[in-house]
Amino acid sequence: MEWTRAKRYQPYTAYSAATLLALQQQAADSPAQLRYHIRPRSGLLNDPNGFSYFNGEWNVFYQSFPFGATHGLKAWMRLTSPDLVHWYEHGLALQPDTKFDSHGAYSGSARAVGDRLFLMYTGNHRTATWQRQPYQLGAWLDQKGQVTKLAKPLIEPPAAVSEHFRDPQLLQVGSTYYALIGAQTASDQHGAIWLYQAPAAVGPWQAVGPVDLGEATLGYMVECPNLVEVDGTPVMIFCPQGLPKQVAAYQNIYPNMYVSGTAFDYQTAQLSQPSALNNLDAGFDVYASQAFNAPDGKAYLISWVGLPDLTYPTDQENWANCLSQVKELHFHAGHLYQQPVAAMKTLRQTEHSFAGPVTTIAATAGQQLELQLTIAADQTGTLYLAADDTLTHGLQLNFDTRTGQLEVDRGQTAQVPAPEYGTTRSVAVPAHQPLQLRIFLDHSLAEIFVNHGAEVVTLRYFNDQAWGQIAFAQPTQVTGKWWPLQL
Amino acid sequence: MEWTRAKRYQPYTAYSAATLLALQQQAADSPAQLRYHIRPRSGLLNDPNGFSYFNGEWNVFYQSFPFGATHGLKAWMRLTSPDLVHWYEHGLALQPDTKFDSHGAYSGSARAVGDRLFLMYTGNHRTATWQRQPYQLGAWLDQKGQVTKLAKPLIEPPAAVSEHFRDPQLLQVGSTYYALIGAQTASDQHGAIWLYQAPAAVGPWQAVGPVDLGEATLGYMVECPNLVEVDGTPVMIFCPQGLPKQVAAYQNIYPNMYVSGTAFDYQTAQLSQPSALNNLDAGFDVYASQAFNAPDGKAYLISWVGLPDLTYPTDQENWANCLSQVKELHFHAGHLYQQPVAAMKTLRQTEHSFAGPVTTIAATAGQQLELQLTIAADQTGTLYLAADDTLTHGLQLNFDTRTGQLEVDRGQTAQVPAPEYGTTRSVAVPAHQPLQLRIFLDHSLAEIFVNHGAEVVTLRYFNDQAWGQIAFAQPTQVTGKWWPLQL
Repeated sequence: MEWTRAKRYQPYTAYSAATLLALQQQAADSPAQLRYHIRPRSGLLNDPNGFSYFNGEWNVFYQSFPFGATHGLKAWMRLTSPDLVHWYEHGLALQPDTKFDSHGAYSGSARAVGDRLFLMYTGNHRTATWQRQPYQLGAWLDQKGQVTKLAKPLIEPPAAVSEHFRDPQLLQVGSTYYALIGAQTASDQHGAIWLYQAPAAVGPWQAVGPVDLGEATLGYMVECPNLVEVDGTPVMIFCPQGLPKQVAAYQNIYPNMYVSGTAFDYQTAQLSQPSALNNLDAGFDVYASQAFNAPDGKAYLISWVGLPDLTYPTDQENWANCLSQVKELHFHAGHLYQQPVAAMKTLRQTEHSFAGPVTTIAATAGQQLELQLTIAADQTGTLYLAADDTLTHGLQLNFDTRTGQLEVDRGQTAQVPAPEYGTTRSVAVPAHQPLQLRIFLDHSLAEIFVNHGAEVVTLRYFNDQAWGQIAFAQPTQVTGKWWPLQL
Repeated sequence: MEWTRAKRYQPYTAYSAATLLALQQQAADSPAQLRYHIRPRSGLLNDPNGFSYFNGEWNVFYQSFPFGATHGLKAWMRLTSPDLVHWYEHGLALQPDTKFDSHGAYSGSARAVGDRLFLMYTGNHRTATWQRQPYQLGAWLDQKGQVTKLAKPLIEPPAAVSEHFRDPQLLQVGSTYYALIGAQTASDQHGAIWLYQAPAAVGPWQAVGPVDLGEATLGYMVECPNLVEVDGTPVMIFCPQGLPKQVAAYQNIYPNMYVSGTAFDYQTAQLSQPSALNNLDAGFDVYASQAFNAPDGKAYLISWVGLPDLTYPTDQENWANCLSQVKELHFHAGHLYQQPVAAMKTLRQTEHSFAGPVTTIAATAGQQLELQLTIAADQTGTLYLAADDTLTHGLQLNFDTRTGQLEVDRGQTAQVPAPEYGTTRSVAVPAHQPLQLRIFLDHSLAEIFVNHGAEVVTLRYFNDQAWGQIAFAQPTQVTGKWWPLQL
């Protein structure tokens, strides 16, 4: 089927329940389907939305087009969790059912206000001539999961920005509410982040102005801005589209980056002493990350693992993409660290350990596992993951702990997504030092935490599920453990 | 909406995807919804089907009408598990899409044959004049989850039985296949179980004849026959409808019973030295249980928790019923024992223990937990579960370890299902002995294992989810532990 515009935007009532049941079955039966990450029940998943703590549970939503692997008419799907690891699917939460979100309930954030969760999101409206009109909208989610939308937009597009104005992050400082909104300037089509403020979540909202991150250009558009305080340091996480590679090097079609500073001034919208732009993730597929400061005092991050304008092999099975695991953020010596949350350990099944000069770690480990290992200093070699018997196919981690280099190569996997953006990603690590890796595999997703989260390499990969070998190309001095993971 | 016959039997294509998404959300958001048991994704769930081991995983299916809490057009939904506790939903598996199952893909069983799973089930067909025509049908499920139906029925209704002829259990003894089928005799409308045999699962099938269980009457119909060998003892589990209460006492609208013997002769369809009829479960809501002898040498049981012709409070939320946890069967001294499978312990979170004269075990334990306790001999009292602060509302377990009696009372819960069939169920336990209980709560389901599975009391209950107290009415000499359960 060709996804014409008309088909992508037809209402959910235009599809039959039989079609949806078949799509749900097809996604569930996919060999590449994830088991312990958030994945679409059917169709396409993109940005995480509304990552928050409410009513004694963690909440996250995701952008969903339930009817195929294409960016059609979007809704929010909701999940809740007691521990940021075990997620319960509530299903449809925010539907595109008003004039203001007629062409999609697009991305946004959420924050507990009183005994309800306030959702602030972008309504995508298209005129009869297909002009995009973005509205920043509000809705209440009550403790029973019922959504009540506000009758009118919170923020209309300002004159200074183009039709690209979306992805509000709702913040609260004292009794004042703020919103960061991704934008493109109308005059010269440059990426920007606009700051708004209001005395209440429901408004009235007033523009403070564009945020100053100290960079002359943020490309032609900024999506998904998130300001989060990490161990006292303000960190702005965002997705600059069209960013010149001389500003910051990246290989993905669009990067997800962050800038840290010493303080963020909400009156002037200025980040003091901004750092250079840094890639949030050193892998192939992270985008549209959402971070927030939780009531437990920690900063958490969750990401879309998928990129705009790319195709993935499961498109053929009518589903696409997933969310990353939730990561706990820390800031130390000018650097952002990302670590698995503590409850990830509850997924571990039987522990297997290894030490010494090792070649094969496990011949049939499968692809639903956690692997922790420390490769001794001053070695070079290759670690294969999800590999076949002969190590011909698999993910390759090429390491050099003499010079300090780690390269992740998905070029020898069964189906390589987007090879035009390269099949390897590299991370510099300390030379002449042991290399510590904590790796999670979930059938078609790999998350590689390098040196306790100093870097994370996240990627989708598509291998035969029978390829379950973990092995080095040659004997390697290493210690470690691995566990099959449950659910 | 009134569920007219026409509405109940319209094709799944007659419903919109928007309707199904709303039903799935409504079921997920229900406060009564189960979290670690198999439950309907939407609509009504009834019999477990095809409980089997295939392709390295446990498989179970359930009868589903996805569009409301009514017995409409049925399909099979599939789930798989590595451990009989953590279930992965595959969704729709067997659809009512041929002439032979045009009015429902009704209950049946499954068995691995070669590298495929053979499904043997009842196709429900209605003629233009609404005459029921049951066909015993076959289908293959391959390792990718794809179903291929056989073109023709395996067994046509024999002349000796009425239109009520269904629920085949597929068995294999050596190289011969057998099927037990629930039936009603045509001549005098009595319940019966028919035995068939075949050289292969696909047939040709030939009648051996009605099974002799040593009882003069099995009521007017027998549903869901299952023959399972438990520690060397053949046990026939079945649902006799309209069974005279002088044959065997029961309080539920229809009982789920078992008869044990010393041997089952497949040539004569006779159970040697049959026991009296026994209730399989001492509670309110167990029906349509499926048992099978697994490749690991054990016998496992799973049940529908729900009864035909009854309504439940969640009908108002357009969903109904669930499956029990899987139980491991044992046979000892003429008695069937049912125990949780070992992996149920993997759900346990923080352990809480108690001992001595105890009144309140936990004030806010919630309703997703396991509770193990031993009440000392020669005491009388009441244990409240899922109770409010004042112990006015809750499940009541009235025990008397002097005379040896345990009564489960759901009369003081918020919404009492089917009170016309009584609000209490009683179990005799040894007098002057400690009473050992292992209790699982899952929001609206209680499973109470008495004295290491000598009896099981299974029931749905419907309380405010804020009622999380576990307490005795007065200080009670007891030792025990409890755990919140995950997922």
